[in-house]
Amino acid sequence: MSVIVVGTMAYDAIETPFGKTSQIVGGSALYAAYAASNFIKPINQVSIVGYDFSKDEMAELKGRGVSLEGVEIVPDKKSFFWSGKYHLDMNTRDTLATDLNVLADFNPLLPDSYQDSEFLMLGNLMPAIQISVIEQLKMRPKLIVMDTMNFWIESALSDLQKVLTMVDVLMVNDSEGRQLSREFSLVKAAKAIMNMGPKYLIIKKGEHGALLFHKNEVFFAPALPLEDVFDPTGAGDTFAGGFIGHIARTKDISFQNMKTAIIVGSAMASFCVEKFGPLRLKEITKTDIDGRIKQFVDLVQFDIALV
Amino acid sequence: MSVIVVGTMAYDAIETPFGKTSQIVGGSALYAAYAASNFIKPINQVSIVGYDFSKDEMAELKGRGVSLEGVEIVPDKKSFFWSGKYHLDMNTRDTLATDLNVLADFNPLLPDSYQDSEFLMLGNLMPAIQISVIEQLKMRPKLIVMDTMNFWIESALSDLQKVLTMVDVLMVNDSEGRQLSREFSLVKAAKAIMNMGPKYLIIKKGEHGALLFHKNEVFFAPALPLEDVFDPTGAGDTFAGGFIGHIARTKDISFQNMKTAIIVGSAMASFCVEKFGPLRLKEITKTDIDGRIKQFVDLVQFDIALV
Repeated sequence: MSVIVVGTMAYDAIETPFGKTSQIVGGSALYAAYAASNFIKPINQVSIVGYDFSKDEMAELKGRGVSLEGVEIVPDKKSFFWSGKYHLDMNTRDTLATDLNVLADFNPLLPDSYQDSEFLMLGNLMPAIQISVIEQLKMRPKLIVMDTMNFWIESALSDLQKVLTMVDVLMVNDSEGRQLSREFSLVKAAKAIMNMGPKYLIIKKGEHGALLFHKNEVFFAPALPLEDVFDPTGAGDTFAGGFIGHIARTKDISFQNMKTAIIVGSAMASFCVEKFGPLRLKEITKTDIDGRIKQFVDLVQFDIALV
Repeated sequence: MSVIVVGTMAYDAIETPFGKTSQIVGGSALYAAYAASNFIKPINQVSIVGYDFSKDEMAELKGRGVSLEGVEIVPDKKSFFWSGKYHLDMNTRDTLATDLNVLADFNPLLPDSYQDSEFLMLGNLMPAIQISVIEQLKMRPKLIVMDTMNFWIESALSDLQKVLTMVDVLMVNDSEGRQLSREFSLVKAAKAIMNMGPKYLIIKKGEHGALLFHKNEVFFAPALPLEDVFDPTGAGDTFAGGFIGHIARTKDISFQNMKTAIIVGSAMASFCVEKFGPLRLKEITKTDIDGRIKQFVDLVQFDIALV
């Protein structure tokens, strides 16, 4: 019972209306691992870092049950670096710098010990790499979930279309869903995208929650209304980590259980935005998580008997 | 057991990406009455129309249990007229024409027969008129709900602040809530607005659903994901009508029942946008409404036992 998480481990420099960090750890696989490790061990991590990546961070991940056997350390290059500045509404941001560094050479080789993993979370990465990871697995995982972004829709559509035929669940945000499907209505977009391969589609709408589509069914999970969103960096990856973590823990890939997994993902994401980078994710306890999930229940539960 | 609905009865000319109407009936009190009349009779309507307002429409409203005793008919003026064109995203629109006509002289005199009404829905109108209606009531209703808009925040803030101290529930959309409170975070905006008077605040987010705030509690109702939004005109007023209709039918003004009322309002609004103007609202049956509410249950219900 284990899960493979593929994605970036990186340094970010973030500026929000609330403050500014110098370099802070980040990356899709780092956020996903911190979130998922609350629910399942081991996390079989697949990533690449440079000589500059913090040894303490590696030790902290290891201590949380994250296997680093699949994390390549390049001795003469720096880690992937991203820098961005959020606007006042926190929904939009400017990228100030993207230094690929080690990521330019990322060509992951899956360790043999990862072969028995039952679940696969493909974080946002070049589609060719996502395909390569799936093809290296001798046995197909029970569930393959992938994330992607507008950059790959624009620059690697053909590879993206191929990987879409190989996965079970796609996660995109609303603008990416519209771009990929060329439909404005999210209901129409969902139908078009599910016709491209994935049986399940999750459309993330940031502060407006997330939708899960499957055949003609739809489920909606709200985002928790927060007084302040301190730093949205990594919220989507944290959502993905919570989602796959819950699925892997319960080993239940039914639509009904995916609904619960999306609530778990939303709860984890609501922690993520409370502090810079992954700081809040490192602090929270099982009690915190249970309390937060209870808040989601209270947020949407109503008494239908009164209607 | 009755409800007073105050607001406009008007003609609209609407253009959406799907088509164009010539004059079609509309107005906040008309939409609210069509929605509320599914749940409660009589609706004690308070409005003003001109000589041109359709007699057939009046008869249709009467047939649905809407009392027109409080609807003034001005023999030598035309009805209020609004014309607008929606953008492709259906969330923004340009106003092409606003002809006040009879509305310029609106100074409603409450019929004696309305005095025993238990619930009051103040549709979007000049705050001074909203105050006047409340002051004409000899006994305070069990629940006073009001709507308003950016125009009154900008042009009649002092009157608006007065009426806010007199009502129980305020409904605004997200941008109006931010404008009124001068807070970007909706959670902070809600606290600031509840400090202005209303014990309950509903923030409508269009396709992103609605939030209900009360003290430190919050409830979220999603909007139903639809393939097409044909015409959003009147959706907010229809929501208000469904809300007050459910409250009046159940005579239960608890926070728990308001949650259900918001789901009922959201269900009614989801019908409204399916056709031009109030056309769809005139067609639907109890079975349609029950089926739609069931869709809302399916949309948000998840199995917490699995977490």
